[in-house]
Amino acid sequence: MIIMGVDPGTRYAGYGVIKKEKQKTFLIESGCLDVHKEKSLVKKIGAIYEFIVGKVKEHHVTHLAIETPFLYRNASTFLKLGYVRGILYLIADQQNLELSEFSPSEVKQGLTGYGKATKEQVAKVVLRLFHIKKPQRDDTTDAIGVALCALWQRGK
Amino acid sequence: MIIMGVDPGTRYAGYGVIKKEKQKTFLIESGCLDVHKEKSLVKKIGAIYEFIVGKVKEHHVTHLAIETPFLYRNASTFLKLGYVRGILYLIADQQNLELSEFSPSEVKQGLTGYGKATKEQVAKVVLRLFHIKKPQRDDTTDAIGVALCALWQRGK
Repeated sequence: MIIMGVDPGTRYAGYGVIKKEKQKTFLIESGCLDVHKEKSLVKKIGAIYEFIVGKVKEHHVTHLAIETPFLYRNASTFLKLGYVRGILYLIADQQNLELSEFSPSEVKQGLTGYGKATKEQVAKVVLRLFHIKKPQRDDTTDAIGVALCALWQRGK
Repeated sequence: MIIMGVDPGTRYAGYGVIKKEKQKTFLIESGCLDVHKEKSLVKKIGAIYEFIVGKVKEHHVTHLAIETPFLYRNASTFLKLGYVRGILYLIADQQNLELSEFSPSEVKQGLTGYGKATKEQVAKVVLRLFHIKKPQRDDTTDAIGVALCALWQRGK
């Protein structure tokens, strides 16, 4: 089981690929795709698709876990996130990935035991778990967080 | 210039491919993709992508015109339409298509001269223009309508 967690955005898309082997969880790769310089929404969407498909193939990903807010402060941002979600659903279909979705509060609850935890608290758990010393972008730690949620849900 | 108009939905997706040649406008193909029997949203998204890409290649489409509501009665339906829009943006990027978007009222205005026209009035104009006798689904005539809007906008 190789899970890719994605925290989709139209400026940055965080991702984290984790693997469970012999009761141990490994972080294979994580980072943040920067698409905010792409000229148009169409180009951003295309770049996110290419990037995620590339990582799925490279790491033989079997599960996709997405952080999906169900409401958002800003309607226009929420709609744009919908476009990116559509792309992720398409990738799940094309690459035969099992798909799980978690709301931000589910990720917080899963990682820290508290649904209203801050992004910093989520980051702290993720960094400690994988012995990461260097600070990471929230997008990256959130993406690793959602991958862990999917792993733990399946491990039950 | 070969324009594919799409009226995207998560149950039905209307489409119409038109071509302008020697000052005459031809309807190459139109219809409605029925995805409401696909088991999941992921499968629907995958089916819409495959279908549209297939038609784009088959007819050497150069422009994609989409009917895009900016608000919707039902927030959950609106969000699902967002997923389909994301897919259409991706296709535009991958297949190098120029993209135009029109709101439902712009399509009505363009076709009938009245932004609050009914779907039946739009259908009547489309059917008459292409000498179509058989009644068509609204999804289909709306899709042809949005393709015409894109054609006329470019012809200015």
